[in-house]
Amino acid sequence: MQRMTVGDYLLARLKEAGVGHLFGVPGDYNLQFLDRVIAHQDIGWVGCANELNAAYAADGYARCRGAAALLTTFGVGELSAINGVAGSFAEYLPVIHIVGAPASQAQQRGDCVHHSLGDGDFRHFLRMAGEVSAATAQLSAGNAAVEIDRVIATSMREKRPGYLMLAVDVAEAEIAPPAAPLDFAQPSDEQARRAFRDAAEQHLAQARRVSLLADFLAARWQQQTQLAQLRQRRAIPCATLLMGKGVLDEQFPGYVGTYAAAGSERDINDPIEQADVTICAGVRFTDTLTAGFTQQLNPARIIDIQPFAASVAERRFAPLNMADALSELDALFARYGENWAQASDPTPSKAPTETSAISQHHFWTLMQSFLQPGDIILADQGTAAFGAAALRLPPGAQLLVQPLWGSIGYTLPAAFGAQTAAPAQRVILIVGDGSAQLTIQELGSMLRDGQRPIIFLLNNEGYTVERAIHGATQRYNDIAQWNWIALPQAFCLHGQAQSWRVTEGVQLKEVMARLQAPACLTLVEVAMDKHDLPPLLRKVTACLAQRNGG
Amino acid sequence: MQRMTVGDYLLARLKEAGVGHLFGVPGDYNLQFLDRVIAHQDIGWVGCANELNAAYAADGYARCRGAAALLTTFGVGELSAINGVAGSFAEYLPVIHIVGAPASQAQQRGDCVHHSLGDGDFRHFLRMAGEVSAATAQLSAGNAAVEIDRVIATSMREKRPGYLMLAVDVAEAEIAPPAAPLDFAQPSDEQARRAFRDAAEQHLAQARRVSLLADFLAARWQQQTQLAQLRQRRAIPCATLLMGKGVLDEQFPGYVGTYAAAGSERDINDPIEQADVTICAGVRFTDTLTAGFTQQLNPARIIDIQPFAASVAERRFAPLNMADALSELDALFARYGENWAQASDPTPSKAPTETSAISQHHFWTLMQSFLQPGDIILADQGTAAFGAAALRLPPGAQLLVQPLWGSIGYTLPAAFGAQTAAPAQRVILIVGDGSAQLTIQELGSMLRDGQRPIIFLLNNEGYTVERAIHGATQRYNDIAQWNWIALPQAFCLHGQAQSWRVTEGVQLKEVMARLQAPACLTLVEVAMDKHDLPPLLRKVTACLAQRNGG
Repeated sequence: MQRMTVGDYLLARLKEAGVGHLFGVPGDYNLQFLDRVIAHQDIGWVGCANELNAAYAADGYARCRGAAALLTTFGVGELSAINGVAGSFAEYLPVIHIVGAPASQAQQRGDCVHHSLGDGDFRHFLRMAGEVSAATAQLSAGNAAVEIDRVIATSMREKRPGYLMLAVDVAEAEIAPPAAPLDFAQPSDEQARRAFRDAAEQHLAQARRVSLLADFLAARWQQQTQLAQLRQRRAIPCATLLMGKGVLDEQFPGYVGTYAAAGSERDINDPIEQADVTICAGVRFTDTLTAGFTQQLNPARIIDIQPFAASVAERRFAPLNMADALSELDALFARYGENWAQASDPTPSKAPTETSAISQHHFWTLMQSFLQPGDIILADQGTAAFGAAALRLPPGAQLLVQPLWGSIGYTLPAAFGAQTAAPAQRVILIVGDGSAQLTIQELGSMLRDGQRPIIFLLNNEGYTVERAIHGATQRYNDIAQWNWIALPQAFCLHGQAQSWRVTEGVQLKEVMARLQAPACLTLVEVAMDKHDLPPLLRKVTACLAQRNGG
Repeated sequence: MQRMTVGDYLLARLKEAGVGHLFGVPGDYNLQFLDRVIAHQDIGWVGCANELNAAYAADGYARCRGAAALLTTFGVGELSAINGVAGSFAEYLPVIHIVGAPASQAQQRGDCVHHSLGDGDFRHFLRMAGEVSAATAQLSAGNAAVEIDRVIATSMREKRPGYLMLAVDVAEAEIAPPAAPLDFAQPSDEQARRAFRDAAEQHLAQARRVSLLADFLAARWQQQTQLAQLRQRRAIPCATLLMGKGVLDEQFPGYVGTYAAAGSERDINDPIEQADVTICAGVRFTDTLTAGFTQQLNPARIIDIQPFAASVAERRFAPLNMADALSELDALFARYGENWAQASDPTPSKAPTETSAISQHHFWTLMQSFLQPGDIILADQGTAAFGAAALRLPPGAQLLVQPLWGSIGYTLPAAFGAQTAAPAQRVILIVGDGSAQLTIQELGSMLRDGQRPIIFLLNNEGYTVERAIHGATQRYNDIAQWNWIALPQAFCLHGQAQSWRVTEGVQLKEVMARLQAPACLTLVEVAMDKHDLPPLLRKVTACLAQRNGG
């Protein structure tokens, strides 16, 4: 009978999930498994500078590839990573977290071994992981096949992290290879599907104004093509929330902009809020993206498509997957679409006022011109993410933001992960100085791997987003001042990096002109005023300050 | 009636615990509390580059000052810090972790707010913290006084982290000020104390060879003076484990060295293992510090002093605090000490073989000469910590290592915390290149605050300690290569840093001669062979490799 190690079994299943790289940091409890990784033909090892960064990189990779895997060591490694994993949980990314653990016998004896709390309990961290995972398992030779399959399949179906605790001896134990491929399908109930179609038809048949609001869950469940097809049938007004930017082609007729409730303008809000029927596809309303839940949508006029259910005017149909629900809508678009108003052409965005210093407004206007089709843009939580709301993405471009979990520093390692997932695409990272300080060392991994991201470091001398919420001039919103343009060279030994500092719009424009396809990693430090905010962020922070009590 | 905010109440209690600084990262849920901190006369705010580093800094501060406090924001901040907090739990440091949380009303409504998992459950992270804290509390205006007192007192008594979840509105609520100071006392039972004395006397009265093995828990419970007094009465043979180095004066007669069971030599082990009575003071045996639990101690001959209990030949007496137990021993030392053999003078350590390249052996010999009384030395888990076992510390010197939790990268931010706690002392950080990459950005905070630590960066091109355990030439033990000596200048804007790279012993010696009291932060990159190990580490890694199954 054919046998394989548990480690190889796990790698085979990861490959089925679409994982081509494993991010992480080695530790003495995971080296046996790492030998299997290095020997594996289709899964590459990507060492990171620390575990939190590895988790962020895996998350960024999963946003581009649909799944990712992360390897850490027991206790110290996994807990360093857990904030990144929690972000993947909150924002629906299937990241399989494998944790190398002490030998089963040492665990059974309750030995006081390194990386444990010294109390003989080896399940503390498994329990902690349970709070931020779709499924967890402590693997043994006996349960490995069943538990690996359960955790990975659950993770893939729910698009949330899975946790596997893999003791050093278990990684090397031999088991039978998989008998059949894993089943990630998420079937709909036929009756629910029919009932949904009938209810949706009742509303759409009579409607004159139909609009579409799409968000990140539609991206996670990979419904971009289905949504594009609906819009081909009828170019109704469409918007995304910030988190979902990229799920709709923003150059196609009907796209009105980034919806942010009281944070966005009437030319965006009216088509979405005042339609006879608003189709919400994969939408979650978060405080920061709705200026504090100010969305004005009448539940009686909403068709809401969610990953496992859909509802029409608050009547719920489940289980019903997103693809099936959208497929029913497609038929209804074909039948009734010609009755619906098409969107008027968007008003062209105004040219920026040319000033010598670089205002937020000026920066984002220049960024708009800089973008190319297929770009992967990452904008860190802060002025960057909220500024990106004003962008109109080129075709095939993707925006990676993390506004619900909102962990500052996330995007720098996520850019490393995204570039690993999509080596041929241009990766543009826009990150504030306060945010970049948290995770800066991953520049070293980018440089080691010869990556060529373009990094715009918005230097506004501290936590501008915090200043806007509270304590505008308080010392706690200041940060250590770094010599930013010296950093890329310091993080590599052989000089494959370039950097500039710009203080005026004209300089930024010149530098951008040289960065159509840079030959090495580029960092552009953009000096900005510490109180200048993108318009959306001004509205959002006013609302947050109020909710936090001043 | 006098009133004060919950925030001020908390700060008053922290001050009673001996906390003079609060480490952390601001976030919009903790800014109200931060206003109180900035306004406070006796507690200073110390912003860090990220939360894990802040937790490490707080841990290092607590090792020098007896307690510390950490401030993060909900979800993203606290989870980033939690590995550091777990280290404080494993290694007994009272770090009070204050987490700024969303407004109580938003929590009660279950709002989908930023930094939450989006599921309306605001207690996920409280539960996670419970796994690595002595006490946790979710504060409200009503329970704040009682719960702050309970959590801080428990944390101080048990020398382990306490967790306080402080919603933005609760921080500003007004409550009555403390009526009386907090009571941190940990009383002994009089009967247990007498019974312990009688049992100990039975053994010590007949003994001829008595020895003392002291470890880190004696340092945590601040028994340095009591231990010194015992040794004044009779200069019996003494050793520490690596984790406890500094708790005994290593220049005082009787000190035989760092005990590491099969990892140390007979001139250290024999006096400890073959005594008629071995007094263990605050000892915990960990795998890495005992070459895999190879200690040869006869339980029938041990007097074991622990924080809350003592035992004599396995008979346990509790509750009995360490100070009371040592005070009873002091009386017995006075009465019977003259019967006990005194230690012979230590054999002088051998002069290093002079080679051009810098071997581990040579490095640690030069380090021995470099040390001054009162130095605070931090040695990261890896070749640094195990090499430090061979040092004989000057009087008043302290060694900070983290061998049980063993989180690489810990020492760099811990050095920042230690220097904050003891600004007048010389801080010497010895850290490997692999470790330093995890937390390098805290150099920026050191530089911002004008600190002048001396950093020896052991560049052995990757994870040497892992190579020794498994995968000596595997790619996963390589790391990104950095231009180390360029980093300090990049992490500050105004140039208060110096750095050298040395490849030969004679260079290192010359550089050390210039560093008796450096005027600014100093980084010395020491090039070393990637397979060279300190002798203790060679024995330990062989044992770990075996325990991990090869």
